[in-house]
Amino acid sequence: MSGDVLAVDIGGTKFAAGLVDATGRLRAVHRTPTRPGGNAEELWSDLTALLDRVLAAGGNPDIIGVGVGSGGPMRWPSGEVSPLNIAGWRDFPLRERLADRHPGIPVRVHNDAVAVAIAEHWLGAGRGVSHMLGMVVSTGVGGGLVLGGRLLDGATGNAGHIGHLVVDPCGPPCVCGGLGCLEAVARGPALARWAHERGWRANGAATGRDLTDDARAGHPVARAALARGGEAVGVAIASVMALCDLELVVIGGGISQAGDLLFGPLRAALDRHTGLEFTEAVRVVPAGLGQESGLVGAAALLHQGARYWSAG
Amino acid sequence: MSGDVLAVDIGGTKFAAGLVDATGRLRAVHRTPTRPGGNAEELWSDLTALLDRVLAAGGNPDIIGVGVGSGGPMRWPSGEVSPLNIAGWRDFPLRERLADRHPGIPVRVHNDAVAVAIAEHWLGAGRGVSHMLGMVVSTGVGGGLVLGGRLLDGATGNAGHIGHLVVDPCGPPCVCGGLGCLEAVARGPALARWAHERGWRANGAATGRDLTDDARAGHPVARAALARGGEAVGVAIASVMALCDLELVVIGGGISQAGDLLFGPLRAALDRHTGLEFTEAVRVVPAGLGQESGLVGAAALLHQGARYWSAG
Repeated sequence: MSGDVLAVDIGGTKFAAGLVDATGRLRAVHRTPTRPGGNAEELWSDLTALLDRVLAAGGNPDIIGVGVGSGGPMRWPSGEVSPLNIAGWRDFPLRERLADRHPGIPVRVHNDAVAVAIAEHWLGAGRGVSHMLGMVVSTGVGGGLVLGGRLLDGATGNAGHIGHLVVDPCGPPCVCGGLGCLEAVARGPALARWAHERGWRANGAATGRDLTDDARAGHPVARAALARGGEAVGVAIASVMALCDLELVVIGGGISQAGDLLFGPLRAALDRHTGLEFTEAVRVVPAGLGQESGLVGAAALLHQGARYWSAG
Repeated sequence: MSGDVLAVDIGGTKFAAGLVDATGRLRAVHRTPTRPGGNAEELWSDLTALLDRVLAAGGNPDIIGVGVGSGGPMRWPSGEVSPLNIAGWRDFPLRERLADRHPGIPVRVHNDAVAVAIAEHWLGAGRGVSHMLGMVVSTGVGGGLVLGGRLLDGATGNAGHIGHLVVDPCGPPCVCGGLGCLEAVARGPALARWAHERGWRANGAATGRDLTDDARAGHPVARAALARGGEAVGVAIASVMALCDLELVVIGGGISQAGDLLFGPLRAALDRHTGLEFTEAVRVVPAGLGQESGLVGAAALLHQGARYWSAG
C-alpha cells in the first residue's frame, strides 16, 4: 500500500504521533505530555488535538490507515487499552474511537514494545533476520518476537512479554503480581530505587536517566545498579535463546543507552548461562533506530501487515 | 498421505521402532536396549536389525517415509545426531544412512522431545489447540512449541529447549555448560542426587523412578525432591507463558508420573510467578498419550508434515 499511515504512540509520559510512508519515512511528528490524572475523555481530547495537529502539519493527506503502539495491557485485536501508567484509561475503546473518527480505513492497535520490535525488524538492526527478539529496557521492560519472519502474537495478542520472565525466583515482587520478574529487577525505576537504597542520590527523586548519567560519570553504586540490570537482562535472554532458537536480540529503550555499562554485565551473564551450541552464534545488539521507532513500528502494522498483523 | 510410516525413537536407554498409519495408530512395535559403550557401527547394526524386525512383524508393507525422534543435539534438518547419552554417535549421519537404506521416500529426523510434543498436539492432550508447549520431564528435560498451530523449529531446528531456561541464576551447573538451567535442577538424576545428599537411599544407586516410588510411599526427602522439581518446572512454565502467550502446557515423561507430588508444587510456583491476566487461562495438564508417543510424533513429521515439518 502506498500513502501515509497515521502512527500513534501512547505512553505514560507522552503521546506522540506522525505520518509514516510506505518506506518507513516519518514526518510531521508532534508530541504532547500525557495529562497527569487526566480522565478518559480529557486524555482522548488531548489525543485528537494532537492528531489534528499532525494531519495539518502533514498537509492533510489521505491516510490509508491508523497504527497505534500503546502501553499494555490491552485486549487484542479489539484494542481496548488499559495502560498501566495511564490510570484514566481502563478498557478504553481506543481502536473503536479512532475507527469512528477515521471511517473506511483500518485501525490497528498493538503493544508499544511490540511496535519497537517490528520497527527494528522492518528497518533497523533486525532487517532481513528471520528469528529475533526485540526488547525495550526503560520505565518498563517489554518486547516482541519475530519468528519465521513474522510477528508472534500468541493466543491473545500478548506474546513477547519478556519483562515477565522469571529471572530470580526469590526476587522482588512485580507490578504484574508475580515474583522475580525481569521487569521488577531491571526497569529504570527499580534500578534507581535499588541504588537509592544503597546511598545513591539519598536526598532526591531520581530516575533511570539520572542513573545512567551518574554511572557514566563513574558513580560506583550507579554502575552496580546498571550491572544488576544487565545481568538480569542477560539471564532472560539466555532463556529466550534456548526456547526460541534465535539469530538476533535487539535491545532499545532508555536504560539500553548506558552502553557497555549495561551490555558488559549482560554479555557476562549470557556467557555464564548459555552453553548449547546453537545459542553461541546469536548476536545481541543495541537498537538501530532512534526514539521514534515506536511510531515506525505502529505504521508497520499497516504498511507491512502481512508480516506483522495476523488478526485479519 | 496414506500408508505406514516407519517410526523410530533413539534414546540412551533403548531404541524403539514401529509402524504408524495416517490416523496415528501404532503397530509392530519392537525395542532393543541401547548397547552400552557401542561404537557407531555397532549401534547402527543394532538399529537396522530392529527395523528389519519391525518391518517383518508388520508384513513388510510399503512405507511412505521414515520419521525419527532422537536425543539431541543434532544438525537439523540434515540429521547428523550426537545424542548426549549415546557416546558412540557423534555427528552420526543418521538421516543419510536411513535414506540410503530406504531410497525414494523421505526420511525426517527431529528432537525426541519435539516428537513427544507434536504427538500430544496431533492426537493427545493438545488436540485442536493453537498455542502450546509440550514438555518431557525425565532423564532430561526437553520440549517443543506449537505456535499458531505449527511446530516452531527456530533458526537451526533447536527451538523448544525448555530444559535450558534459567530457573535459578545461582543454581547448579548444567551439562550444557550453563548455570541454573531447569534441566540441571529438575531432571530425574538431579532430583535423585539432591535427595541422596539429604539421606535418601544413602547406600545404593537410585533413579528418578525410585524417587517417585518412594515419594508415593511417603518418604519425606523424596517428596521434597519432587517438590523442588515441580517448583523449578513451574518457574520455567511461568516464563514461557509470559513470552509466548499460550493456551496449554502438556507435561509428560517419567517424573511427571509422580502426579500431584510434582504438579502440586508446580501449580503453587505458577501462582507465585504469574500475574498477567492472559496467563491465568492457560491450562497445565499431564500428557494424554502413553510412553510410545515419541513414535507417534516421529511419524507425524511425515503424516502431518504441513504442520510439523518446515524444512521442505
